[in-house]
Amino acid sequence: MVSKSQTKLITSLQQKKYRDQTGFFVAEGPKVIAELINEGIELQWLFTVDQSEIVAENHFLVDEKALKKLSFLKTANTSVAVFKIPKNESIKSIGLTVVLDAVRDPGNLGTIIRLCDWFGVQQLVCSKDTVDCYNPKVVQATMGSLARVAVHYTSLPQFLQNTTQKTYGACMDGNNIYSEELPKDAVIVMGNEANGISEEIMNMLNQKLTIPRYGEAQRAESLNVATATAIFLSEFRSATEM
Amino acid sequence: MVSKSQTKLITSLQQKKYRDQTGFFVAEGPKVIAELINEGIELQWLFTVDQSEIVAENHFLVDEKALKKLSFLKTANTSVAVFKIPKNESIKSIGLTVVLDAVRDPGNLGTIIRLCDWFGVQQLVCSKDTVDCYNPKVVQATMGSLARVAVHYTSLPQFLQNTTQKTYGACMDGNNIYSEELPKDAVIVMGNEANGISEEIMNMLNQKLTIPRYGEAQRAESLNVATATAIFLSEFRSATEM
Repeated sequence: MVSKSQTKLITSLQQKKYRDQTGFFVAEGPKVIAELINEGIELQWLFTVDQSEIVAENHFLVDEKALKKLSFLKTANTSVAVFKIPKNESIKSIGLTVVLDAVRDPGNLGTIIRLCDWFGVQQLVCSKDTVDCYNPKVVQATMGSLARVAVHYTSLPQFLQNTTQKTYGACMDGNNIYSEELPKDAVIVMGNEANGISEEIMNMLNQKLTIPRYGEAQRAESLNVATATAIFLSEFRSATEM
Repeated sequence: MVSKSQTKLITSLQQKKYRDQTGFFVAEGPKVIAELINEGIELQWLFTVDQSEIVAENHFLVDEKALKKLSFLKTANTSVAVFKIPKNESIKSIGLTVVLDAVRDPGNLGTIIRLCDWFGVQQLVCSKDTVDCYNPKVVQATMGSLARVAVHYTSLPQFLQNTTQKTYGACMDGNNIYSEELPKDAVIVMGNEANGISEEIMNMLNQKLTIPRYGEAQRAESLNVATATAIFLSEFRSATEM
C-alpha cells in the first residue's frame, strides 16, 4: 500500500526544490535500486509490484496502477524506491577531479558520472547552475555510479582559488591534448553544452587544452561535452598510469 | 500551404518503412536544415512559419498549427524540411572505418556519427539491425555531420570477409588499448549497448581491445558505446597522426 501523502511526496521529488527540502530522491527499476542499496545508500521506502522483492519492513506491495502514479518513466518499471540523499564529505585536493561549468543536460551529466566511475575519479565538482545529480533522469542513467562518485555543487571561482592542483580547461583554441605532458593529479574543467567554459572561469585556469579535429573537411562543429570528457579522462589516465 | 497528402507523407516518414519506400527523410529547425542544404543534400520541400526563410519555389509558408502537425518534436521548431536520402558510394577499404554491430539507441548513433565527423572517419558500416541513420532523432542529433559521413547498412560477416584492413573489436577482455601499437588504417567494431559484439562477429576479428578501468572500486559496469567509441577514435588518431 502507498498512502496519498507518500504519493504526493514522491511525485514532488521530480523537482529539485522538494528534493532539497526533504533530502530524498527517487530511483526506479530493480537493477538501479539494487545497485544503490549495495553501495550503501539509505533506503526509505520501496514500492514494488513483485511480491518476491519484499524482504524488509519498509518494502511495500502495490498494484500496477499505484506504481504508475509514482513513476517518472514513460513506461513504469516494476518498482520505485525513495532514498536519502547521502551527505558528501568536503572537497579534497587529491587525485583527478572533474569540474563542470553549467552542464545542463541530464543525459550528459549521467554519462560523465559513469565515466568518472570507470576512470576512478572520486569527485565531481559542479557549478550551482549544473543540472542536479538527483534529477530522476540522471539517477536512471548512472545507476550505481552515482553512489561511487561524490558530486559537489559549489562556487567554481571559490573552488578554483583554493585548489592546490594544476587546472586544465577544455576549449576550441587550447594546446593539443595529445602533445601535452599531463600530470597524475589535476583539475579538468568542462564547459556548458552551447557556450563552453565561461570567461570568468577560463581566466582562472592554468592551461587550455583542445582535442584536435582530423580529416579534410574539418567542418564538424564540436564534440558533445560527454564524449569530450571521455577523451580527456582517457588521455590523463593513459598518460600517467601506464 | 501544406496539402493533406504532404502532411500524411511527412508524418509517415517517422517510420523506416516509409523512408525506404519514398527515399525521403525529415529534418527540423533552421540550423539543422541549413547545415544539410550546405552539405548538398537535396531539399524536396521546406515548410516554415518564418516568411524571411522563403527564398525558393519549394519553400512554403505555414501557420504554427500546420507546422505542429508535421513536427516529430515535443516542441515544434519554426521549420520542417523533407530531404532526399542521398545515394551512398560503395564501401571502400581505406582510412579508418567504424563498424556498428546492432547499436539500437538513436542518441548513441547520432553521437557516433558526430565523432566520426570530428575524427575524419568518412564511412560508418552498420549491421542491418542497427538503428536507421535517417530516424528523426538521429537526424536532429547529428546535424551536418550526417551529410559528411557515409553510413552503410550491410551484412557485417560479408563486409569483414572482404575487407583488406586489420580489424579490431571493443570488448571487456581484450588487450589494453593504451599499450597497443595501432595502425593508421583499420576497421574498429563497436557492439550492442547491452550485449557487446556478437560472437559470430567477434570470431572474425583480428584483435580484441579494452579500455582499462581505473581506481580501487572497479565496480563501474561498462562504458556507454558512444563514449567508448570516442576513446577508441581518440587513441587510433593520436597514435598514428602525431
